[in-house]
Amino acid sequence: MKVFNTIKEMRELLDTHRSNGKSIGLVPTMGYLHEGHISLLNKSVSENDITVLSIYVNPTQFGPTEDLDSYPRDIENDKRLAENAGVDIVFIPSDSIMYLENHFTYVNVNNLTANLCGSSRPTHFQGVTTIVTKLFNIIQPKKAYFGQKDAQQALVINRMVKDLNIPVEIITCPIIREKDGLAMSSRNKYLNQEERGQATILFQSLQMAKNIIIDGERSADIVKSSIQQSINSKSLAKIDYISIVSENTLEDIDKIEGNTLIALAVRFGNTRLIDNLRMEVN
Amino acid sequence: MKVFNTIKEMRELLDTHRSNGKSIGLVPTMGYLHEGHISLLNKSVSENDITVLSIYVNPTQFGPTEDLDSYPRDIENDKRLAENAGVDIVFIPSDSIMYLENHFTYVNVNNLTANLCGSSRPTHFQGVTTIVTKLFNIIQPKKAYFGQKDAQQALVINRMVKDLNIPVEIITCPIIREKDGLAMSSRNKYLNQEERGQATILFQSLQMAKNIIIDGERSADIVKSSIQQSINSKSLAKIDYISIVSENTLEDIDKIEGNTLIALAVRFGNTRLIDNLRMEVN
Repeated sequence: MKVFNTIKEMRELLDTHRSNGKSIGLVPTMGYLHEGHISLLNKSVSENDITVLSIYVNPTQFGPTEDLDSYPRDIENDKRLAENAGVDIVFIPSDSIMYLENHFTYVNVNNLTANLCGSSRPTHFQGVTTIVTKLFNIIQPKKAYFGQKDAQQALVINRMVKDLNIPVEIITCPIIREKDGLAMSSRNKYLNQEERGQATILFQSLQMAKNIIIDGERSADIVKSSIQQSINSKSLAKIDYISIVSENTLEDIDKIEGNTLIALAVRFGNTRLIDNLRMEVN
Repeated sequence: MKVFNTIKEMRELLDTHRSNGKSIGLVPTMGYLHEGHISLLNKSVSENDITVLSIYVNPTQFGPTEDLDSYPRDIENDKRLAENAGVDIVFIPSDSIMYLENHFTYVNVNNLTANLCGSSRPTHFQGVTTIVTKLFNIIQPKKAYFGQKDAQQALVINRMVKDLNIPVEIITCPIIREKDGLAMSSRNKYLNQEERGQATILFQSLQMAKNIIIDGERSADIVKSSIQQSINSKSLAKIDYISIVSENTLEDIDKIEGNTLIALAVRFGNTRLIDNLRMEVN
């Protein structure tokens, strides 16, 4: 496994692989790898000749009051996990490599970024789409792997790739959960014991919503109220949003039908957790 | 020479060329080719195995009151000129191919697009950077060729390529002029005989400015005033802007020094002409 901190030599190696007809898969991450990330690495290793893992805590996707400085990092452990997963190349750039002085260019996906996480994190997706575009241009993978836990991110990146004709196939992989249902996230580390105990309410509320819909409920308002009530039963939970949207437009729907996304963001203390559920409703 | 109106088959052909080690050059245009475009094609043909000419009048770079509908088109003549220049592939997509329903994604180069043409054409550069990104992703050239006549466009695209790590080398080629100095432009066709006669004032004023600076003048205000006076000597000329800026930031400078761009936009009737001059001033 090769580790690169700069672009030029890595590009040369990747160019060689490409001209030898090797397919390249990319798993872009912010590091502090958990089983969710590992599932993406496993999938890439199984589908490509060469798998590149990028580890970069991208400052432009954090808001001014967010957790950029405290975001958990453990590069040595990440490298061990990557090696075990069969990763070929790890790319760990610094900020000065990724953002030159006078960096002026951003990629914006309008409409899809106004709602859900976009309303509480207004510059977040611009940061995500910009860094993903940069990583795609640097690594030029055939396929790139993202987790369904960041449902809106996956939809935004899919739309960006279509709109800009980016020659990368986007693979969205299922949410990986702890045994008690909590979606894996590097930010789970922030939770104290009591918060960790209560945090399973996100998954439980989504499961409850799923059952209500399976039983025939089609009113988004009624389902949202049930989720709200369920989450508010936990003393430490502060709801950021509960949204039921069309998966195509990410716009709120009144009547639940078609490809539907139920997405939540809930704060426990300073920690903001997200979770979601996709349903095809007839 | 092959002509494509859709993406898929062209991409397959280009993939074959690439895997055979052929280098690809791209000349993106809006068609109605003149000698300026031909100079770009000649340069690409001399520097690459395969030259692609794209012809697309991109609607997103026109403002609501601009000349999108009347922009001159002559595809048959363009194809003849391309064939004569040794072009291998012409890409002539339709709007529905280039902008899918629910196209939400745009590339924005901040700061460099606020000034000069950006102030009278506020959404122009967003359209340019977005379509150029799309063409780069579709064609994946090694080199792409742009004219220095669109000085701000060339600087914006260079900045975008750097900021987004786009693996394309940008070649900016000199302005090609009519015998009397008028910069070649597809829009020159709009000029009536009297306007055409007066339009040489852009070039003449820039030459005069150059001489004043060579003679020692360093005040941008004084040079701008001289240009203004010169242009206003023509009865049909209406100045849109006269700017003297640093070529690195496109910000106005007071004292002329370093890499300097003097750029003009002047209207004759409904026709807006641009021209510019680069100087390295010690």
